[in-house]
Amino acid sequence: MLCRRPARKLSQRANAKGLERHVPVDKNMKPVLDAAEVNALLAKVFPQLNESAHEYQAIEVFPGGCTVRLNATERHLRPGNTVSGTALFALADIGGYVCVLSHAGPDALSVTTNLSINFMRKAEAGPIDGHCRILKLGKSLMVFDIDMTAGPHGQTIAHAVGTYSIPPKR
Amino acid sequence: MLCRRPARKLSQRANAKGLERHVPVDKNMKPVLDAAEVNALLAKVFPQLNESAHEYQAIEVFPGGCTVRLNATERHLRPGNTVSGTALFALADIGGYVCVLSHAGPDALSVTTNLSINFMRKAEAGPIDGHCRILKLGKSLMVFDIDMTAGPHGQTIAHAVGTYSIPPKR
Amino acid sequence: MLCRRPARKLSQRANAKGLERHVPVDKNMKPVLDAAEVNALLAKVFPQLNESAHEYQAIEVFPGGCTVRLNATERHLRPGNTVSGTALFALADIGGYVCVLSHAGPDALSVTTNLSINFMRKAEAGPIDGHCRILKLGKSLMVFDIDMTAGPHGQTIAHAVGTYSIPPKR
Amino acid sequence: MLCRRPARKLSQRANAKGLERHVPVDKNMKPVLDAAEVNALLAKVFPQLNESAHEYQAIEVFPGGCTVRLNATERHLRPGNTVSGTALFALADIGGYVCVLSHAGPDALSVTTNLSINFMRKAEAGPIDGHCRILKLGKSLMVFDIDMTAGPHGQTIAHAVGTYSIPPKR
Repeated sequence: MLCRRPARKLSQRANAKGLERHVPVDKNMKPVLDAAEVNALLAKVFPQLNESAHEYQAIEVFPGGCTVRLNATERHLRPGNTVSGTALFALADIGGYVCVLSHAGPDALSVTTNLSINFMRKAEAGPIDGHCRILKLGKSLMVFDIDMTAGPHGQTIAHAVGTYSIPPKR
Repeated sequence: MLCRRPARKLSQRANAKGLERHVPVDKNMKPVLDAAEVNALLAKVFPQLNESAHEYQAIEVFPGGCTVRLNATERHLRPGNTVSGTALFALADIGGYVCVLSHAGPDALSVTTNLSINFMRKAEAGPIDGHCRILKLGKSLMVFDIDMTAGPHGQTIAHAVGTYSIPPKR
Repeated sequence: MLCRRPARKLSQRANAKGLERHVPVDKNMKPVLDAAEVNALLAKVFPQLNESAHEYQAIEVFPGGCTVRLNATERHLRPGNTVSGTALFALADIGGYVCVLSHAGPDALSVTTNLSINFMRKAEAGPIDGHCRILKLGKSLMVFDIDMTAGPHGQTIAHAVGTYSIPPKR
Repeated sequence: MLCRRPARKLSQRANAKGLERHVPVDKNMKPVLDAAEVNALLAKVFPQLNESAHEYQAIEVFPGGCTVRLNATERHLRPGNTVSGTALFALADIGGYVCVLSHAGPDALSVTTNLSINFMRKAEAGPIDGHCRILKLGKSLMVFDIDMTAGPHGQTIAHAVGTYSIPPKR
């Protein structure tokens, strides 16, 4: 079973510390795949994503967004013993991919056209949650952002905004 | 089934349009200036911002963020009769400036080091609100993001993430 | 007459200081408008760009790119007496617009979808040259970057990368 | 006629493919490590970078920039059999890291603060070269960009701009 700790609980913990984290939602969007279906699709079409363990996974899909998780281990670290920018980029990129697969349909050939990422705090090995929000879902482009949070206080360690190009329906 | 408690439970206070917009807040941050004080400072140190009317202004300052507004007129439009990217960039940039002035103190010499902006929807002349959130407030850098919303449905028309460099205390 | 000091001369001066500035070029691209034609088009469809003087202008169009210029005055300054981020954003955005108008044809309704800008050095009032390069010219998207240089040493004061969405041919 | 001496005169040394790629250089910068020294440092402080083969490596260090290479294999691909965005992000990030290590000195604790990447064309498995240029080398921040080229025509497949934070000298 993949997602024992729902993202909301994180939010509740965060609130206790004086942090608030609401994921804005466009309820008019209708996901067509849930998290389990997306994870199954990822395992099939993108085997390189998780070479061994379930490092990157969809935790939840909801109208207008999703939550993804990186279970960061030793191999995701960089000098300074913090999770590398590349591992966090991968989490952001997979967050957008889960958004597009779940909301625009399971066409694996959607591709990132650009992504801008800011690194705010260091993160140790452990779970890092990515809270994704679809900012625009058009016919050919989807724009999303993602807050990546980690640690006992659920602080934002990185943030990214990206665009996926959606291929024409075949 | 993977996740029982979806993040959108948070959406129960959603507005009539089915869109929800919560600005995450770090309640541990303490603003040192309010919106009126920031507007007075802007008028004094940055007269170029509002050559005539009160086009760009701080609406609210709260712990961890602020709201700014552009009252877009004919002169902010570009071909297609939509608010220009430059006018929206200016709103994003002033949103970050209000964040840094209100939270790091009234040093006018803080400067933007980078800003990444996505344009999602067209906006007509009229008020455009910028919902700003401080993602990190360090000694020398502040990172923020801003959702720019407009129109009867309060849709996000643009989104930006930027960094301000804060000069050393003198 | 608009461009007395061609961009290359800047480059030659720069070389004397130990700086080199080559604009990479894809010679397979064929511009369909030259700088004078683009300036005439801008004056017609985008009167807001230059409310009074010729502040923003195309200086040169060449296969795969263009040079644009901002003649920055007092009104483009921000606190610290340096050219504002907004004025430089406008130069970057107009650089992309000149690229798309000159290379994809004079459809004024091409719009910026995103732009990421870095500010490296302060610039005083005076001419700021934007050296633009088309990184990709597709059917529906054009990606470009721009080096903005100023001052006696022709140093890069800002750099941006952006994407324009090109409307379908009508 | 507007401009007599077009910037593309610089293109006369263009290559056989009609594409030209000059990396602008600030000759006043003095690298303190060469490519072999940087590769040795990377192997020591960042073993996660190349788990098995020499996938990511510095090819050349020159004043004001460097060239890095990704030897992309099957494991760097994503759906569509193209090199993944994450593998290209890693190349861009390592390009900036090589710039900062070689020019600001071998302090492994410099970290990326932000990076914005655009993906322009698909790339197959094989070598991908990253041409890096230092846009600014300050005391605490370094800004760089990178053109990533691949394939028989050496086309730009991706482009990134990023910032590294340099820790204070100890």
